[in-house]
Amino acid sequence: MVLFSSLTPVFIAVICVLIGIILKSTRKSSKKEKSDTKNKPESRPWVDEDLRDSTDLHVEEDDIDEEWQGLDENIAHVPFSAERYSEDEMIKRSKEFYELLNKRRTVRFISDEPVPKEVIDNVIKTAGTSPSGAHTEPWTFVVVHDPEIKHKIREIIEEEEEVNYRKRMGDKWVHDLKRLRTNWIKEYLDTAPYLILIFKQVYGRLPNGKKKTHYYNEISVSIACGILLAALQNVGLVTVTSTPLNCGPRLRVLLQRSANEKLLLLLPVGYPSKDATVPDLTRKPLDDIMVAM
Amino acid sequence: MVLFSSLTPVFIAVICVLIGIILKSTRKSSKKEKSDTKNKPESRPWVDEDLRDSTDLHVEEDDIDEEWQGLDENIAHVPFSAERYSEDEMIKRSKEFYELLNKRRTVRFISDEPVPKEVIDNVIKTAGTSPSGAHTEPWTFVVVHDPEIKHKIREIIEEEEEVNYRKRMGDKWVHDLKRLRTNWIKEYLDTAPYLILIFKQVYGRLPNGKKKTHYYNEISVSIACGILLAALQNVGLVTVTSTPLNCGPRLRVLLQRSANEKLLLLLPVGYPSKDATVPDLTRKPLDDIMVAM
Repeated sequence: MVLFSSLTPVFIAVICVLIGIILKSTRKSSKKEKSDTKNKPESRPWVDEDLRDSTDLHVEEDDIDEEWQGLDENIAHVPFSAERYSEDEMIKRSKEFYELLNKRRTVRFISDEPVPKEVIDNVIKTAGTSPSGAHTEPWTFVVVHDPEIKHKIREIIEEEEEVNYRKRMGDKWVHDLKRLRTNWIKEYLDTAPYLILIFKQVYGRLPNGKKKTHYYNEISVSIACGILLAALQNVGLVTVTSTPLNCGPRLRVLLQRSANEKLLLLLPVGYPSKDATVPDLTRKPLDDIMVAM
Repeated sequence: MVLFSSLTPVFIAVICVLIGIILKSTRKSSKKEKSDTKNKPESRPWVDEDLRDSTDLHVEEDDIDEEWQGLDENIAHVPFSAERYSEDEMIKRSKEFYELLNKRRTVRFISDEPVPKEVIDNVIKTAGTSPSGAHTEPWTFVVVHDPEIKHKIREIIEEEEEVNYRKRMGDKWVHDLKRLRTNWIKEYLDTAPYLILIFKQVYGRLPNGKKKTHYYNEISVSIACGILLAALQNVGLVTVTSTPLNCGPRLRVLLQRSANEKLLLLLPVGYPSKDATVPDLTRKPLDDIMVAM
């Protein structure tokens, strides 16, 4: 008992140290848990680490120091007038546009026949008419025609995609895609006369170097891609709406895009090859996608 | 000293309890920190808490137990043929489509004139031709024509938007939007003959109740919205591409959507009102949005 009593201060000191160690390790492990959750490719294999909206990122206080640019303080408002069609014309136009777009299919067999560059320019201009959060127009369309660059893109994508298929995606997704006869061999990346790589600018830069917020940039750029797909279909060109998983950083370096640009989609564009086939899919009927009230 | 020594076991017991309490509170506070970070509207005000892609969500092990449905194991492939236009026709079509789409503007002054329902059906059908990750078609278009429901939607949105403007968005964003003359009064929600609320299905349900993964659902649904905007422009209707911040849950309840559906966009649709004005904006020229190589 005397031994014990003389040791009491030592006990207390030891216990204090223990508390310290425990506290520290608890913090560490909770941090670790957090980052583990973040880097868990097995459970959410379709998350491209590079494909995060700026809205997903934790915004540092520094990043708040942004300015809006491009519009004057009191921008003038001007009268708006639109084409006015009769009801019959509207119905006819809406039906014809539906029939045109309903023939669109994702086509993986693309001919190497040349496509007029003017048409490509026009479809990109059309995509650029898309609305965007606070009119930031946060898109860059990189149009690759050079065969060597196309081949380098193919190499990067096939390399990463093979890893995706073999490791990252998990059996289930691979199984899902197998039914669509999708794999990591992407011949169309060489044969298609144009590859359109669509980057979202997660933020912009002002002339003074400050960051400019790009609100809802991923939704905005995806909407622009929808308009681009419609424009391609309208001229008889085909594409594959592809999201090259985890290739963003390497492709960004290859194409010399700056750090604020993240690859959202890659569209190989051309005429369908003569022997092109597509999976015999159907689309949901109107009643399955629309709720009227 | 004797007093101390006899108290040693008590000390140890007290210290053990203390350790327990400290550990517990550390965990709590680290959890609290986490959720604080999550709900930090000041630093990233444009994040709608309800508007997260399923790809952002932590996927529980349970959720992995999903199946692909709708396609047979070995789905047949069928020959594909596309409309083939001459080069001149392609250039002409691409130019005309650009000119049509370039007249599209976001219009906040919408007339209450009735619009043929058949046209609305056709534009929704057109949006439904959009590609989607693994052909999941993860969209629901809720088309509201009923004046009472429209008014309830307006009440919810104006209520939340006023809070957004006054508190959540921060001075900078409000300042940015002021230049576009945007505020929380949304008259068009009453006057527009149709409100189209576009929900992304972050996952699907199989007949057996299991969850079905919806890969890249936000990108897919946004692409469908791009096609929808093109279809609306094609018939002379106008809209506002709006993202009602933080209204998703209340609107989901009002419109009786299930938990897997998250509001992505709301489009009020109609003819422009006679005195409609738009801000005198320009779009970036082709050279600013396209990089050719």
